[in-house]
Amino acid sequence: MLLQVLNTAGIAVFAASGAVLGVRKDFDLWGILTVGVLTGVGGGILRDVLLGITPPASIDNWTPICTAAISSLVVFFFHPAFSELRRMILVLDAFGMGLFATTGAGVALDVGASAFAAVLVGMLTAIGGGILRDVLANEIPLLLQPADLYAIPALLGSALFVTGERLAPQWHAWWVVAAVILATGLRLLGLAFHWTLPTAPTRTWPRRWTR
Amino acid sequence: MLLQVLNTAGIAVFAASGAVLGVRKDFDLWGILTVGVLTGVGGGILRDVLLGITPPASIDNWTPICTAAISSLVVFFFHPAFSELRRMILVLDAFGMGLFATTGAGVALDVGASAFAAVLVGMLTAIGGGILRDVLANEIPLLLQPADLYAIPALLGSALFVTGERLAPQWHAWWVVAAVILATGLRLLGLAFHWTLPTAPTRTWPRRWTR
Amino acid sequence: MLLQVLNTAGIAVFAASGAVLGVRKDFDLWGILTVGVLTGVGGGILRDVLLGITPPASIDNWTPICTAAISSLVVFFFHPAFSELRRMILVLDAFGMGLFATTGAGVALDVGASAFAAVLVGMLTAIGGGILRDVLANEIPLLLQPADLYAIPALLGSALFVTGERLAPQWHAWWVVAAVILATGLRLLGLAFHWTLPTAPTRTWPRRWTR
Repeated sequence: MLLQVLNTAGIAVFAASGAVLGVRKDFDLWGILTVGVLTGVGGGILRDVLLGITPPASIDNWTPICTAAISSLVVFFFHPAFSELRRMILVLDAFGMGLFATTGAGVALDVGASAFAAVLVGMLTAIGGGILRDVLANEIPLLLQPADLYAIPALLGSALFVTGERLAPQWHAWWVVAAVILATGLRLLGLAFHWTLPTAPTRTWPRRWTR
Repeated sequence: MLLQVLNTAGIAVFAASGAVLGVRKDFDLWGILTVGVLTGVGGGILRDVLLGITPPASIDNWTPICTAAISSLVVFFFHPAFSELRRMILVLDAFGMGLFATTGAGVALDVGASAFAAVLVGMLTAIGGGILRDVLANEIPLLLQPADLYAIPALLGSALFVTGERLAPQWHAWWVVAAVILATGLRLLGLAFHWTLPTAPTRTWPRRWTR
Repeated sequence: MLLQVLNTAGIAVFAASGAVLGVRKDFDLWGILTVGVLTGVGGGILRDVLLGITPPASIDNWTPICTAAISSLVVFFFHPAFSELRRMILVLDAFGMGLFATTGAGVALDVGASAFAAVLVGMLTAIGGGILRDVLANEIPLLLQPADLYAIPALLGSALFVTGERLAPQWHAWWVVAAVILATGLRLLGLAFHWTLPTAPTRTWPRRWTR
């Protein structure tokens, strides 16, 4: 029940981040709704397609998409107010990411995926929506650019949860809590202290030769 | 039988729209074929992946892909003639869209998806090929930009069909016809009268803060 | 066993091509790892999603992803050395492509796909990673641009293997070898002799009319 509520909050925040990008790119109402909804539910759809859960839970019942749509509409009408809320949204987004990483890994274990696959699926659930958002908006995914940590906290949270479930499944609820805190906390610490990763050492690279 | 023919016509028209974009972007023969074929069958593949129909019908038998390939080849060789046919192609495309929205929803219901999922899958079948086309060509999907209505007629057609099937399944054939007419008609009316949706109200938005 | 080794080599080479693009685009360590890994395993994931093999083999066990990650790390640290190795990498990449086309088709036949689907899936396995790489890096897929042959050798190798398996399955091992040689060889010959395909005949095309 609590998880359900938190999950819905995560979808709403992710959808808002998509809708904001849509506003910035001058999409029309429908475009903003589409980007918002796909950002909100994209991670969950990717998870279910990879795990063979069809139709994906996110489109098989109306809560996730309606949540994402309402969130996008709020951004559409009230977006100037959002710049004030930047800090709060970053916190909520970090929380949504931690939650998606954990629940994604949990769903993967439930359908019998290997521990290794469950960790990856958890991370992909957390980052999938954001990648889809950036690809649709024709931008290089933020995730790939030198920026604050995002995928690594998701990966670690997911890994903690899966390790816990495998070693001591009787403490299920605690692993959920610990994984969400780890992922969310690392993300927030990374934001606060501007942790970044290095780019490649030197760049004396000829322009065109890949593939 | 009629549906089969219409569906094939829809694939051909969608493939042509992809091939035309390929020509405009100076792709070579193979690139034009690839974009054309993926635009023609992309919606159907997306539908089948979401519904767990594997391998997707569009690649499991040769008709859809050969239709799309021939249509792309025709564009490759005769594309200057197509600018004359702009109006006819828009009509055919609207018709293909209406048809895909309806048949997509029908396939979803057949495999036991919820009504809500069927409506969404119908819409995604209709718009998936076009989105894939634009992402591959490295453009912002037309669908997201302020432009004539496209996805909304698909959504409404799909919703009409699913509602009808649930309330009065014995009139199956009529619901197909009604849904195709609704989606196609709205699209054509939208084109004729330049119906558009608003963009977001004001744009006093700081440049970089999403995610 | 040999196949396993070759397949792993293919993943490593593909991953390196992704990581190189990441370096060129100034991604950070994580971005380079992500693009590298997705390029290395993207084709295999696409294959498994299309065939309903869930979770995809490439994420269900750790070899493919660890191989791709190590390969990406090597590029990250030693990439200037790679410009020297350009020729060797092109050969390895051609080899990986031939191998993926063949094994992709083989997996498809194993799960009962039609011969037509198996040929397509083989080709998609070979080219999927590269397309994903370019879409993530916000570039038009190299595959679509006028350039050396890539997808056509993959298609022919895949087709040769499937034809052979259907006509004379007792010679399985030979068909594998022949298909890999055909695909790899055509690719290398195409590179050596600069075989290209034509772009569309004339370009008197009005700028904006698709869809």
